[in-house]
Amino acid sequence: MELIEQLSWRYATKKFDDQRLLSAEQIEVIQQSFGLTATSYGLQPLKLVVVQDKAIQEQLVAHSFGQKQVGQASAVLVICVEQVVDAAFVENYFDRVQQVRNTPAEVLAPFRKHLLENFVTKPKEDLQLWASKQAYIALGNLLTTCAIHRIDSCPMEGFSPQGYDEVLGLTSRGLTATLVMPIGYRASDDFMASLAKVRRPISEVIIEIKG
Amino acid sequence: MELIEQLSWRYATKKFDDQRLLSAEQIEVIQQSFGLTATSYGLQPLKLVVVQDKAIQEQLVAHSFGQKQVGQASAVLVICVEQVVDAAFVENYFDRVQQVRNTPAEVLAPFRKHLLENFVTKPKEDLQLWASKQAYIALGNLLTTCAIHRIDSCPMEGFSPQGYDEVLGLTSRGLTATLVMPIGYRASDDFMASLAKVRRPISEVIIEIKG
Repeated sequence: MELIEQLSWRYATKKFDDQRLLSAEQIEVIQQSFGLTATSYGLQPLKLVVVQDKAIQEQLVAHSFGQKQVGQASAVLVICVEQVVDAAFVENYFDRVQQVRNTPAEVLAPFRKHLLENFVTKPKEDLQLWASKQAYIALGNLLTTCAIHRIDSCPMEGFSPQGYDEVLGLTSRGLTATLVMPIGYRASDDFMASLAKVRRPISEVIIEIKG
Repeated sequence: MELIEQLSWRYATKKFDDQRLLSAEQIEVIQQSFGLTATSYGLQPLKLVVVQDKAIQEQLVAHSFGQKQVGQASAVLVICVEQVVDAAFVENYFDRVQQVRNTPAEVLAPFRKHLLENFVTKPKEDLQLWASKQAYIALGNLLTTCAIHRIDSCPMEGFSPQGYDEVLGLTSRGLTATLVMPIGYRASDDFMASLAKVRRPISEVIIEIKG
Protein backbone atom coordinates (compact mmCIF):
# COMPACT_ATOMS: atom_id res chain seq x y z
CA MET A 1 0.00 0.00 0.00
CA GLU A 2 3.06 2.26 -0.27
CA LEU A 3 1.76 3.57 -3.60
CA ILE A 4 -1.57 4.55 -2.03
CA GLU A 5 0.29 6.59 0.56
CA GLN A 6 2.31 8.24 -2.24
CA LEU A 7 -0.80 9.02 -4.32
CA SER A 8 -2.51 10.43 -1.24
CA TRP A 9 0.51 12.69 -0.67
CA ARG A 10 0.10 14.13 -4.17
CA TYR A 11 -2.05 17.21 -4.66
CA ALA A 12 -2.35 19.90 -7.32
CA THR A 13 0.39 22.19 -6.05
CA LYS A 14 -0.63 25.84 -6.24
CA LYS A 15 2.57 27.38 -4.92
CA PHE A 16 6.05 26.00 -5.55
CA ASP A 17 9.28 26.73 -3.70
CA ASP A 18 11.11 28.64 -6.43
CA GLN A 19 14.47 28.08 -4.73
CA ARG A 20 14.46 24.28 -4.81
CA LEU A 21 15.44 22.60 -8.04
CA LEU A 22 14.97 19.05 -9.25
CA SER A 23 18.15 17.12 -9.95
CA ALA A 24 19.23 16.07 -13.42
CA GLU A 25 18.56 12.48 -12.34
CA GLN A 26 14.95 13.28 -11.39
CA ILE A 27 14.38 14.98 -14.75
CA GLU A 28 15.90 11.95 -16.43
CA VAL A 29 13.45 9.56 -14.71
CA ILE A 30 10.53 11.72 -15.83
CA GLN A 31 11.77 11.78 -19.40
CA GLN A 32 12.28 8.02 -19.48
CA SER A 33 8.87 7.44 -17.91
CA PHE A 34 7.24 9.65 -20.53
CA GLY A 35 8.94 7.67 -23.28
CA LEU A 36 7.56 4.42 -21.81
CA THR A 37 3.94 5.65 -21.69
CA ALA A 38 1.52 3.30 -23.41
CA THR A 39 -0.15 4.82 -26.46
CA SER A 40 -2.71 3.64 -28.98
CA TYR A 41 -1.06 1.13 -31.39
CA GLY A 42 2.25 2.15 -29.81
CA LEU A 43 2.42 5.08 -32.22
CA GLN A 44 3.47 7.72 -29.64
CA PRO A 45 1.96 10.82 -31.31
CA LEU A 46 3.44 12.88 -28.47
CA LYS A 47 6.45 14.89 -27.43
CA LEU A 48 7.37 16.30 -24.06
CA VAL A 49 8.83 19.78 -23.79
CA VAL A 50 10.77 20.21 -20.55
CA VAL A 51 11.22 23.89 -19.72
CA GLN A 52 13.80 24.80 -17.09
CA ASP A 53 14.23 28.51 -17.71
CA LYS A 54 12.66 30.96 -15.29
CA ALA A 55 12.48 33.81 -17.84
CA ILE A 56 10.59 31.63 -20.32
CA GLN A 57 8.45 30.20 -17.52
CA GLU A 58 7.49 33.75 -16.56
CA GLN A 59 6.35 34.36 -20.14
CA LEU A 60 4.21 31.22 -19.95
CA VAL A 61 2.42 32.48 -16.81
CA ALA A 62 0.66 35.08 -18.97
CA HIS A 63 -0.65 32.28 -21.18
CA SER A 64 -1.73 30.19 -18.18
CA PHE A 65 -4.46 32.50 -16.84
CA GLY A 66 -1.85 34.03 -14.57
CA GLN A 67 -1.22 30.82 -12.64
CA LYS A 68 2.05 31.61 -10.90
CA GLN A 69 3.09 28.01 -10.29
CA VAL A 70 4.23 27.89 -13.93
CA GLY A 71 6.84 30.54 -13.14
CA GLN A 72 7.84 29.18 -9.73
CA ALA A 73 8.21 25.49 -10.52
CA SER A 74 11.61 23.87 -11.01
CA ALA A 75 10.48 22.70 -14.44
CA VAL A 76 7.39 22.94 -16.60
CA LEU A 77 6.39 19.85 -18.55
CA VAL A 78 4.40 20.60 -21.70
CA ILE A 79 2.82 17.49 -23.19
CA CYS A 80 2.39 18.13 -26.90
CA VAL A 81 0.69 16.23 -29.68
CA GLU A 82 2.10 15.85 -33.16
CA GLN A 83 0.18 18.08 -35.59
CA VAL A 84 0.68 15.61 -38.41
CA VAL A 85 0.20 11.87 -38.07
CA ASP A 86 0.36 10.83 -41.69
CA ALA A 87 1.46 7.86 -43.76
CA ALA A 88 5.15 8.76 -43.21
CA PHE A 89 4.63 8.80 -39.43
CA VAL A 90 3.00 5.36 -39.50
CA GLU A 91 5.64 3.99 -41.89
CA ASN A 92 8.31 5.28 -39.51
CA TYR A 93 6.71 3.26 -36.71
CA PHE A 94 6.76 0.05 -38.73
CA ASP A 95 10.36 0.65 -39.79
CA ARG A 96 11.21 0.88 -36.10
CA VAL A 97 9.34 -2.37 -35.32
CA GLN A 98 11.28 -4.11 -38.08
CA GLN A 99 14.58 -2.76 -36.80
CA VAL A 100 14.02 -3.45 -33.10
CA ARG A 101 12.31 -6.84 -33.39
CA ASN A 102 13.66 -8.07 -36.67
CA THR A 103 10.07 -8.84 -37.66
CA PRO A 104 9.87 -9.84 -41.35
CA ALA A 105 8.07 -7.24 -43.47
CA GLU A 106 5.49 -9.81 -44.62
CA VAL A 107 4.42 -10.48 -41.03
CA LEU A 108 3.82 -6.78 -40.43
CA ALA A 109 2.19 -6.14 -43.82
CA PRO A 110 -1.51 -6.71 -42.90
CA PHE A 111 -1.37 -4.53 -39.76
CA ARG A 112 0.70 -1.92 -41.60
CA LYS A 113 -1.90 -1.79 -44.38
CA HIS A 114 -4.75 -1.57 -41.87
CA LEU A 115 -3.17 1.28 -39.90
CA LEU A 116 -2.17 3.21 -43.01
CA GLU A 117 -5.71 3.03 -44.38
CA ASN A 118 -7.09 4.01 -40.99
CA PHE A 119 -4.83 7.03 -40.52
CA VAL A 120 -4.81 8.33 -44.07
CA THR A 121 -8.60 8.42 -44.33
CA LYS A 122 -9.30 9.89 -40.89
CA PRO A 123 -10.15 13.63 -40.80
CA LYS A 124 -7.44 15.79 -39.23
CA GLU A 125 -9.73 16.72 -36.29
CA ASP A 126 -10.27 13.04 -35.46
CA LEU A 127 -6.52 12.43 -35.50
CA GLN A 128 -5.90 15.42 -33.23
CA LEU A 129 -8.55 14.18 -30.80
CA TRP A 130 -7.08 10.67 -30.86
CA ALA A 131 -3.61 12.07 -30.20
CA SER A 132 -4.81 14.40 -27.44
CA LYS A 133 -6.34 11.45 -25.58
CA GLN A 134 -2.93 9.78 -25.58
CA ALA A 135 -1.54 12.94 -23.97
CA TYR A 136 -3.86 12.28 -21.03
CA ILE A 137 -2.43 8.77 -20.61
CA ALA A 138 1.00 10.38 -20.40
CA LEU A 139 -0.31 12.87 -17.85
CA GLY A 140 -1.70 10.04 -15.71
CA ASN A 141 1.59 8.20 -15.90
CA LEU A 142 3.68 11.30 -15.13
CA LEU A 143 1.54 12.34 -12.15
CA THR A 144 2.07 8.90 -10.61
CA THR A 145 5.75 8.90 -11.57
CA CYS A 146 6.21 12.19 -9.75
CA ALA A 147 4.22 11.09 -6.67
CA ILE A 148 6.39 7.97 -6.33
CA HIS A 149 9.51 10.12 -6.39
CA ARG A 150 8.09 12.75 -4.02
CA ILE A 151 8.10 15.35 -6.76
CA ASP A 152 5.27 17.86 -6.52
CA SER A 153 3.19 18.61 -9.58
CA CYS A 154 0.14 20.46 -10.83
CA PRO A 155 -1.81 19.07 -13.80
CA MET A 156 -3.24 21.87 -15.96
CA GLU A 157 -5.72 21.92 -18.83
CA GLY A 158 -6.25 25.68 -18.45
CA PHE A 159 -3.78 27.56 -20.63
CA SER A 160 -3.56 29.06 -24.10
CA PRO A 161 -2.07 26.54 -26.56
CA GLN A 162 -1.49 29.43 -29.00
CA GLY A 163 0.42 31.37 -26.36
CA TYR A 164 2.53 28.34 -25.49
CA ASP A 165 3.18 27.74 -29.18
CA GLU A 166 4.40 31.33 -29.56
CA VAL A 167 6.71 31.29 -26.55
CA LEU A 168 8.12 27.81 -27.14
CA GLY A 169 8.14 27.77 -30.95
CA LEU A 170 6.01 24.64 -31.04
CA THR A 171 4.33 25.15 -34.42
CA SER A 172 7.66 25.15 -36.20
CA ARG A 173 8.33 21.82 -34.51
CA GLY A 174 4.97 20.47 -35.70
CA LEU A 175 3.55 20.33 -32.18
CA THR A 176 0.48 21.56 -30.29
CA ALA A 177 0.63 22.03 -26.52
CA THR A 178 -2.09 19.88 -24.97
CA LEU A 179 -1.40 19.58 -21.24
CA VAL A 180 0.88 21.44 -18.87
CA MET A 181 2.42 20.19 -15.65
CA PRO A 182 4.72 22.33 -13.52
CA ILE A 183 6.86 20.14 -11.25
CA GLY A 184 9.22 20.73 -8.36
CA TYR A 185 8.73 21.21 -4.63
CA ARG A 186 5.73 22.65 -2.83
CA ALA A 187 6.28 25.96 -1.03
CA SER A 188 6.17 25.60 2.75
CA ASP A 189 3.28 28.08 2.79
CA ASP A 190 1.14 26.56 0.03
CA PHE A 191 -2.19 26.52 1.87
CA MET A 192 -3.50 23.82 -0.49
CA ALA A 193 -0.91 21.36 0.87
CA SER A 194 -2.58 21.13 4.25
CA LEU A 195 -6.13 20.62 2.96
CA ALA A 196 -7.65 17.15 3.20
CA LYS A 197 -8.09 15.38 -0.10
CA VAL A 198 -11.66 15.50 -1.39
CA ARG A 199 -12.76 12.30 -3.09
CA ARG A 200 -15.98 10.48 -3.80
CA PRO A 201 -16.08 7.43 -1.50
CA ILE A 202 -14.54 4.30 -3.02
CA SER A 203 -17.88 2.53 -2.62
CA GLU A 204 -19.44 5.15 -4.90
CA VAL A 205 -16.87 4.98 -7.73
CA ILE A 206 -16.22 1.22 -7.81
CA ILE A 207 -18.73 -1.35 -9.06
CA GLU A 208 -17.71 -4.96 -8.46
CA ILE A 209 -19.17 -7.70 -10.60
CA LYS A 210 -18.05 -11.05 -9.24
CA GLY A 211 -18.86 -14.61 -10.27
CA MET B 1 15.37 4.00 -11.70
CA GLU B 2 13.35 1.10 -10.28
CA LEU B 3 10.19 2.56 -11.84
CA ILE B 4 11.82 2.65 -15.27
CA GLU B 5 12.60 -1.04 -14.95
CA GLN B 6 8.97 -1.68 -13.94
CA LEU B 7 7.57 0.37 -16.83
CA SER B 8 9.90 -1.43 -19.23
CA TRP B 9 8.58 -4.76 -17.91
CA ARG B 10 5.02 -3.72 -18.78
CA TYR B 11 3.65 -4.60 -22.19
CA ALA B 12 0.16 -4.92 -23.69
CA THR B 13 -0.49 -8.51 -22.67
CA LYS B 14 -2.16 -10.46 -25.46
CA LYS B 15 -2.53 -13.79 -23.64
CA PHE B 16 -3.21 -14.14 -19.94
CA ASP B 17 -2.75 -17.20 -17.73
CA ASP B 18 -6.41 -17.96 -17.00
CA GLN B 19 -5.48 -20.09 -13.97
CA ARG B 20 -3.72 -17.37 -11.98
CA LEU B 21 -5.88 -14.95 -10.05
CA LEU B 22 -5.09 -11.62 -8.47
CA SER B 23 -5.48 -11.42 -4.71
CA ALA B 24 -8.17 -9.37 -3.00
CA GLU B 25 -5.38 -7.10 -1.75
CA GLN B 26 -4.13 -6.46 -5.28
CA ILE B 27 -7.64 -5.59 -6.45
CA GLU B 28 -7.96 -3.29 -3.44
CA VAL B 29 -4.79 -1.37 -4.37
CA ILE B 30 -6.09 -0.88 -7.90
CA GLN B 31 -9.44 0.39 -6.64
CA GLN B 32 -7.82 2.81 -4.22
CA SER B 33 -5.41 4.02 -6.89
CA PHE B 34 -8.32 4.64 -9.26
CA GLY B 35 -10.08 6.68 -6.58
CA LEU B 36 -6.97 8.82 -6.14
CA THR B 37 -6.60 9.64 -9.85
CA ALA B 38 -6.36 13.35 -10.55
CA THR B 39 -9.30 14.71 -12.56
CA SER B 40 -10.28 18.10 -13.91
CA TYR B 41 -11.49 20.33 -11.03
CA GLY B 42 -11.41 17.19 -8.85
CA LEU B 43 -14.90 16.34 -10.11
CA GLN B 44 -14.23 12.62 -10.81
CA PRO B 45 -16.77 12.07 -13.61
CA LEU B 46 -15.70 8.41 -13.64
CA LYS B 47 -16.50 5.01 -12.23
CA LEU B 48 -14.53 1.80 -12.43
CA VAL B 49 -16.31 -1.48 -13.04
CA VAL B 50 -14.23 -4.44 -11.86
CA VAL B 51 -15.41 -7.66 -13.49
CA GLN B 52 -14.21 -10.93 -11.97
CA ASP B 53 -16.61 -13.39 -13.51
CA LYS B 54 -15.38 -15.63 -16.31
CA ALA B 55 -18.87 -16.19 -17.78
CA ILE B 56 -19.47 -12.46 -18.07
CA GLN B 57 -15.91 -11.89 -19.31
CA GLU B 58 -16.58 -14.44 -22.07
CA GLN B 59 -19.64 -12.43 -23.11
CA LEU B 60 -17.47 -9.30 -23.27
CA VAL B 61 -15.00 -10.98 -25.66
CA ALA B 62 -17.68 -10.83 -28.38
CA HIS B 63 -17.89 -7.06 -27.84
CA SER B 64 -14.09 -6.66 -27.86
CA PHE B 65 -13.46 -7.67 -31.48
CA GLY B 66 -12.88 -11.21 -30.23
CA GLN B 67 -9.84 -10.27 -28.14
CA LYS B 68 -9.49 -13.32 -25.92
CA GLN B 69 -7.50 -11.63 -23.18
CA VAL B 70 -10.79 -10.16 -21.90
CA GLY B 71 -12.01 -13.69 -21.17
CA GLN B 72 -8.70 -15.03 -19.82
CA ALA B 73 -7.69 -12.21 -17.50
CA SER B 74 -8.12 -12.45 -13.73
CA ALA B 75 -10.19 -9.27 -13.83
CA VAL B 76 -11.41 -6.80 -16.43
CA LEU B 77 -11.34 -3.13 -15.50
CA VAL B 78 -13.90 -1.03 -17.36
CA ILE B 79 -13.30 2.69 -16.96
CA CYS B 80 -16.66 4.41 -17.40
CA VAL B 81 -17.71 8.04 -17.66
CA GLU B 82 -20.80 9.46 -16.03
CA GLN B 83 -23.46 10.11 -18.68
CA VAL B 84 -24.78 13.08 -16.75
CA VAL B 85 -22.59 15.75 -15.20
CA ASP B 86 -25.18 18.31 -14.27
CA ALA B 87 -25.77 20.95 -11.61
CA ALA B 88 -26.60 18.28 -9.01
CA PHE B 89 -23.31 16.49 -9.74
CA VAL B 90 -21.33 19.71 -9.29
CA GLU B 91 -23.31 20.66 -6.16
CA ASN B 92 -22.53 17.23 -4.75
CA TYR B 93 -18.82 17.92 -5.22
CA PHE B 94 -19.00 21.23 -3.34
CA ASP B 95 -21.02 19.63 -0.54
CA ARG B 96 -18.20 17.10 -0.20
CA VAL B 97 -15.55 19.86 -0.12
CA GLN B 98 -17.48 21.61 2.64
CA GLN B 99 -17.82 18.40 4.63
CA VAL B 100 -14.23 17.20 4.28
CA ARG B 101 -12.47 20.53 4.64
CA ASN B 102 -14.96 22.49 6.65
CA THR B 103 -14.61 25.27 4.10
CA PRO B 104 -17.17 28.02 4.70
CA ALA B 105 -19.82 28.19 1.95
CA GLU B 106 -18.95 31.83 1.20
CA VAL B 107 -15.34 30.91 0.43
CA LEU B 108 -16.46 28.29 -2.08
CA ALA B 109 -19.25 30.43 -3.59
CA PRO B 110 -17.35 32.12 -6.46
CA PHE B 111 -15.77 28.87 -7.72
CA ARG B 112 -19.06 27.03 -7.22
CA LYS B 113 -20.87 29.64 -9.32
CA HIS B 114 -18.18 29.54 -12.00
CA LEU B 115 -18.26 25.74 -12.30
CA LEU B 116 -22.04 25.55 -12.27
CA GLU B 117 -22.29 28.10 -15.08
CA ASN B 118 -19.58 26.29 -16.97
CA PHE B 119 -21.16 22.84 -16.71
CA VAL B 120 -24.80 23.81 -17.14
CA THR B 121 -24.17 25.71 -20.38
CA LYS B 122 -21.80 23.19 -21.97
CA PRO B 123 -23.31 20.94 -24.68
CA LYS B 124 -23.66 17.30 -23.64
CA GLU B 125 -21.10 16.18 -26.26
CA ASP B 126 -18.51 18.58 -24.85
CA LEU B 127 -19.11 17.24 -21.35
CA GLN B 128 -18.77 13.66 -22.55
CA LEU B 129 -15.52 14.51 -24.29
CA TRP B 130 -14.23 16.29 -21.20
CA ALA B 131 -15.14 13.29 -19.05
CA SER B 132 -13.64 10.77 -21.48
CA LYS B 133 -10.30 12.58 -21.35
CA GLN B 134 -10.30 12.12 -17.59
CA ALA B 135 -10.78 8.39 -18.19
CA TYR B 136 -7.43 8.40 -20.00
CA ILE B 137 -5.72 9.95 -16.96
CA ALA B 138 -7.11 7.06 -14.93
CA LEU B 139 -5.84 4.60 -17.53
CA GLY B 140 -2.35 6.12 -17.36
CA ASN B 141 -2.39 5.92 -13.58
CA LEU B 142 -3.71 2.33 -13.50
CA LEU B 143 -1.19 1.06 -16.06
CA THR B 144 1.62 2.40 -13.91
CA THR B 145 -0.04 1.15 -10.72
CA CYS B 146 -0.18 -2.35 -12.21
CA ALA B 147 3.40 -2.26 -13.51
CA ILE B 148 4.69 -1.29 -10.07
CA HIS B 149 2.88 -4.27 -8.56
CA ARG B 150 3.97 -6.66 -11.31
CA ILE B 151 0.40 -7.05 -12.49
CA ASP B 152 0.04 -7.57 -16.22
CA SER B 153 -2.43 -5.48 -18.17
CA CYS B 154 -3.66 -4.64 -21.64
CA PRO B 155 -5.05 -1.16 -22.34
CA MET B 156 -7.87 -1.30 -24.90
CA GLU B 157 -9.76 1.37 -26.83
CA GLY B 158 -11.12 -1.20 -29.30
CA PHE B 159 -14.44 -2.55 -28.04
CA SER B 160 -18.15 -1.85 -28.41
CA PRO B 161 -19.37 0.48 -25.66
CA GLN B 162 -22.96 -0.52 -26.52
CA GLY B 163 -22.10 -4.19 -26.13
CA TYR B 164 -20.39 -3.53 -22.79
CA ASP B 165 -23.39 -1.47 -21.69
CA GLU B 166 -25.72 -4.36 -22.50
CA VAL B 167 -23.68 -7.04 -20.74
CA LEU B 168 -22.84 -4.97 -17.67
CA GLY B 169 -26.05 -2.95 -17.39
CA LEU B 170 -24.13 0.31 -17.52
CA THR B 171 -26.83 2.56 -18.98
CA SER B 172 -29.12 1.91 -16.03
CA ARG B 173 -26.23 3.02 -13.82
CA GLY B 174 -25.82 6.20 -15.87
CA LEU B 175 -22.44 5.11 -17.25
CA THR B 176 -20.72 4.74 -20.60
CA ALA B 177 -17.80 2.33 -21.00
CA THR B 178 -14.81 4.32 -22.25
CA LEU B 179 -11.69 2.22 -21.76
CA VAL B 180 -11.09 -1.43 -20.99
CA MET B 181 -8.13 -3.00 -19.24
CA PRO B 182 -7.90 -6.73 -18.58
CA ILE B 183 -5.42 -7.42 -15.77
CA GLY B 184 -3.81 -10.49 -14.28
CA TYR B 185 -0.76 -12.57 -15.19
CA ARG B 186 0.77 -13.09 -18.61
CA ALA B 187 0.58 -16.62 -20.02
CA SER B 188 3.98 -18.32 -20.18
CA ASP B 189 3.50 -18.68 -23.95
CA ASP B 190 2.38 -15.13 -24.76
CA PHE B 191 4.72 -14.48 -27.68
CA MET B 192 4.33 -10.72 -27.18
CA ALA B 193 6.07 -10.96 -23.80
CA SER B 194 9.42 -11.79 -25.33
CA LEU B 195 9.41 -9.05 -27.96
CA ALA B 196 11.62 -6.02 -27.44
CA LYS B 197 9.77 -2.81 -26.64
CA VAL B 198 9.46 -0.50 -29.64
CA ARG B 199 9.80 3.16 -28.76
CA ARG B 200 10.84 6.37 -30.46
CA PRO B 201 14.28 7.31 -29.09
CA ILE B 202 14.13 9.57 -26.03
CA SER B 203 16.11 12.20 -27.94
CA GLU B 204 13.28 12.32 -30.49
CA VAL B 205 10.37 12.71 -28.04
CA ILE B 206 11.95 15.07 -25.50
CA ILE B 207 12.71 18.72 -26.17
CA GLU B 208 14.72 20.45 -23.44
CA ILE B 209 14.56 24.22 -23.07
CA LYS B 210 17.08 25.30 -20.45
CA GLY B 211 18.10 28.68 -19.16
